[in-house]
Amino acid sequence: MAQAQAMVDTHPGGSNLDSHQLADTIEALISCANTCTQCADACLSEPSVADMVTCIRLDLDCADICAATSRVVARQTAYDATVTRAVLEACIAVCSACAAECGQHGQHMEHCRICAEECRRCEQACRTLLAAVG
Amino acid sequence: MAQAQAMVDTHPGGSNLDSHQLADTIEALISCANTCTQCADACLSEPSVADMVTCIRLDLDCADICAATSRVVARQTAYDATVTRAVLEACIAVCSACAAECGQHGQHMEHCRICAEECRRCEQACRTLLAAVG
Amino acid sequence: MAQAQAMVDTHPGGSNLDSHQLADTIEALISCANTCTQCADACLSEPSVADMVTCIRLDLDCADICAATSRVVARQTAYDATVTRAVLEACIAVCSACAAECGQHGQHMEHCRICAEECRRCEQACRTLLAAVG
Amino acid sequence: MAQAQAMVDTHPGGSNLDSHQLADTIEALISCANTCTQCADACLSEPSVADMVTCIRLDLDCADICAATSRVVARQTAYDATVTRAVLEACIAVCSACAAECGQHGQHMEHCRICAEECRRCEQACRTLLAAVG
Repeated sequence: MAQAQAMVDTHPGGSNLDSHQLADTIEALISCANTCTQCADACLSEPSVADMVTCIRLDLDCADICAATSRVVARQTAYDATVTRAVLEACIAVCSACAAECGQHGQHMEHCRICAEECRRCEQACRTLLAAVG
Repeated sequence: MAQAQAMVDTHPGGSNLDSHQLADTIEALISCANTCTQCADACLSEPSVADMVTCIRLDLDCADICAATSRVVARQTAYDATVTRAVLEACIAVCSACAAECGQHGQHMEHCRICAEECRRCEQACRTLLAAVG
Repeated sequence: MAQAQAMVDTHPGGSNLDSHQLADTIEALISCANTCTQCADACLSEPSVADMVTCIRLDLDCADICAATSRVVARQTAYDATVTRAVLEACIAVCSACAAECGQHGQHMEHCRICAEECRRCEQACRTLLAAVG
Repeated sequence: MAQAQAMVDTHPGGSNLDSHQLADTIEALISCANTCTQCADACLSEPSVADMVTCIRLDLDCADICAATSRVVARQTAYDATVTRAVLEACIAVCSACAAECGQHGQHMEHCRICAEECRRCEQACRTLLAAVG
């Protein structure tokens, strides 16, 4: 995903935010969105799918919110701090909830263990960017 | 869009939320997401596109956040109030910003006038649902 | 959803396509995308969720493809017939598959019956627009 | 993006497709979706934005179709070859169109040069997977 960094660096507009932090957050968001999509599908294939319903639901929410957040954060033109802040906060909330739920299944299901890790990494990247947005 | 209501009503799980309020909010969200997609594209076709850059950017953000919010709100299974609240707040922020920007062009561009109205309607629906979520 | 029509009508660029057909297709696409999201979630709440796995998967695919198609079709600026045609064909394929699967559960589950109907309506709208695109 | 591979490998269901090819395609799709989102925004910040309208439109289409395709391809549960094939074909069509358009601006705009490359890489990954799907 060196592309996210290259695209931040070649953007004709400037940004108030640190370019590495911005690119890292975009990468964490799109990776987490995809991991959650894959985890929801893996849960759906589990013989114990009836026990995975809450996990599937949070995976789907997390995938949707991370994907939307990645797009908002990726846009540098006519940057709006209020919108950026609010969407990062929503993303932190869902990543935290999804990490907690996936974490409960992580010992028996490797896909949930990896997904919980990805959610925590994404939550942390969003918290760091949120602090920078101020 | 009577379908949103019918789907809420035939869901096998219960909901703490009022079913009409839920269906109205879903309808407002998906309608606003689409209107913003259409407004961004209409702005892109304006001869004065260079003056519409902020509007296009906010339209795109609003479309993405409304679409994600519509999906989270539409899911009644294993409802999570913290996530719902945070995503509604993000949606209110972007609808408000997009309505303000589109409103500035509304006198000369009918697509912006309609879009500002849709954003205000969606913002209001989200505020009402947020109050009900508590 | 009179908004989709109003936004088509106030777009500053022209379109080769009939404006009513275009607006009807956009409306069918966003309604179907949402109905499939709601159906996937309703299936997830069924006591017999283990029997609904194929249905949930197709609902999710159909929601994602209809949503992407609605955005492509809604954009009238710099219209590209090759892209429009290909995405309408993908949408027809997934609506047809999802309608067939949901139709199998329609007698016992009202949400699947409604969703199958919505998928058929959307498939038909896409076929009509595809014929017009040529 | 080692996560995409790890998630494919830990999925409880089997797949007819080669796991490396599947993970590579998912990675190419989500990277291309994001690059196109960033390119649309970079084009929007160009002083010559009026000349970039076709490019912005195709970038937005490509981002939406790649994102939807990445989700369909990432789902291994209840695999449906007809749907997979149709969505890969739509993705090939839009990646090819976007690569051609961005390629025309690549000499003067580094973001378009990178985006054209990403679209070509994604198109190739989709063609390879499509051949494997048969």
